[in-house]
Amino acid sequence: MPRARGRRPAGSHTREDIACAAKRQFAELGYPRTTLRGIAREADVDTRLVTHYFGSKQNLFASVVELPFEPDALVEDLIAAGPEAVGHKLATLVLSTLSQPEARQTLTGLVRAAASEDEAAALVRRFLTDRLLTPLARLLGSDHPELRAGLIGAHMTGFLVGRYVVEFPGLNEVSDHDLADAIGPVLQHYLTGDLGGRASA
Amino acid sequence: MPRARGRRPAGSHTREDIACAAKRQFAELGYPRTTLRGIAREADVDTRLVTHYFGSKQNLFASVVELPFEPDALVEDLIAAGPEAVGHKLATLVLSTLSQPEARQTLTGLVRAAASEDEAAALVRRFLTDRLLTPLARLLGSDHPELRAGLIGAHMTGFLVGRYVVEFPGLNEVSDHDLADAIGPVLQHYLTGDLGGRASA
Repeated sequence: MPRARGRRPAGSHTREDIACAAKRQFAELGYPRTTLRGIAREADVDTRLVTHYFGSKQNLFASVVELPFEPDALVEDLIAAGPEAVGHKLATLVLSTLSQPEARQTLTGLVRAAASEDEAAALVRRFLTDRLLTPLARLLGSDHPELRAGLIGAHMTGFLVGRYVVEFPGLNEVSDHDLADAIGPVLQHYLTGDLGGRASA
Repeated sequence: MPRARGRRPAGSHTREDIACAAKRQFAELGYPRTTLRGIAREADVDTRLVTHYFGSKQNLFASVVELPFEPDALVEDLIAAGPEAVGHKLATLVLSTLSQPEARQTLTGLVRAAASEDEAAALVRRFLTDRLLTPLARLLGSDHPELRAGLIGAHMTGFLVGRYVVEFPGLNEVSDHDLADAIGPVLQHYLTGDLGGRASA
């Protein structure tokens, strides 16, 4: 098929230009309203070229997403709260991050993408458990750090899905402050508590 | 466009035939390997007719899915465990349901669909919080039943996503029995515990 008229041919900067346009549009419009066609228009290329380089919209998103926090710095902050307060501190940090519209959009988009794209799922896994939660549990000296990281990662992912995707009505019933009080002890249990059964052996 | 040759025209049974074929294929092949084309072939209609009646594959799935348990009966079972044991019982029931391949496929497919389709999200919400968890919290006499249902629904959804979609490595590290011991106290906290802050006022 001939290229659409007036569009540039694929060149050395094309992939980078598409990534820049995508990053800007995802941040400005949010995941649902961003389209491959709109990104192609901004990057001045044919839409097929976007698909050629990045596959689906979800893959493109996973490739260009900039996470709203830096795991290593976050682990340090959390450890500084002290081993008894780390669960509440983590709950507070999650809730305050999600209260920022841009960060919320990024994370919600990432989890939506992870539901159907392996690349996005790997990004969530790598970021949330490998870089943030497993190191945190290790630094706290807890047994089974990977299990603990998995349980917390599951709860954090589920909170995001439950509040912003499935929209369970109860999750908007109280303030973030009160939610942190409700969730904090759970994260504390998963981080440092006795997990019971043979898991604690 | 002309219909594909040899296919039946849309008739009174067409929608039902498509639903039957879809139900069978989703159950047998699982969500990812089921295609609209394959369903159309089995129902002996054109693929466009499947799209006409049901929209996307995810919507079709949400329309025909049969949930692997019945919420009202489940609430009764849980209440029968007694107010102190209900968290552990709920964790055990969730894990044993997910250990059945067909039920796991159905629920994972439903949550994947909910990530991008409002109809599937509404189904999760209606089923998990409105029919199962909110009534359970109410019957236990707990304050803020909707908040509690939302927190548990989020955790259960997150566990499914974390174990079967994002695949956090730690969640396959221990047996279901040990997982129930780890998660049970959390569900108990969310069902009957003091949620702290103004949420408990």
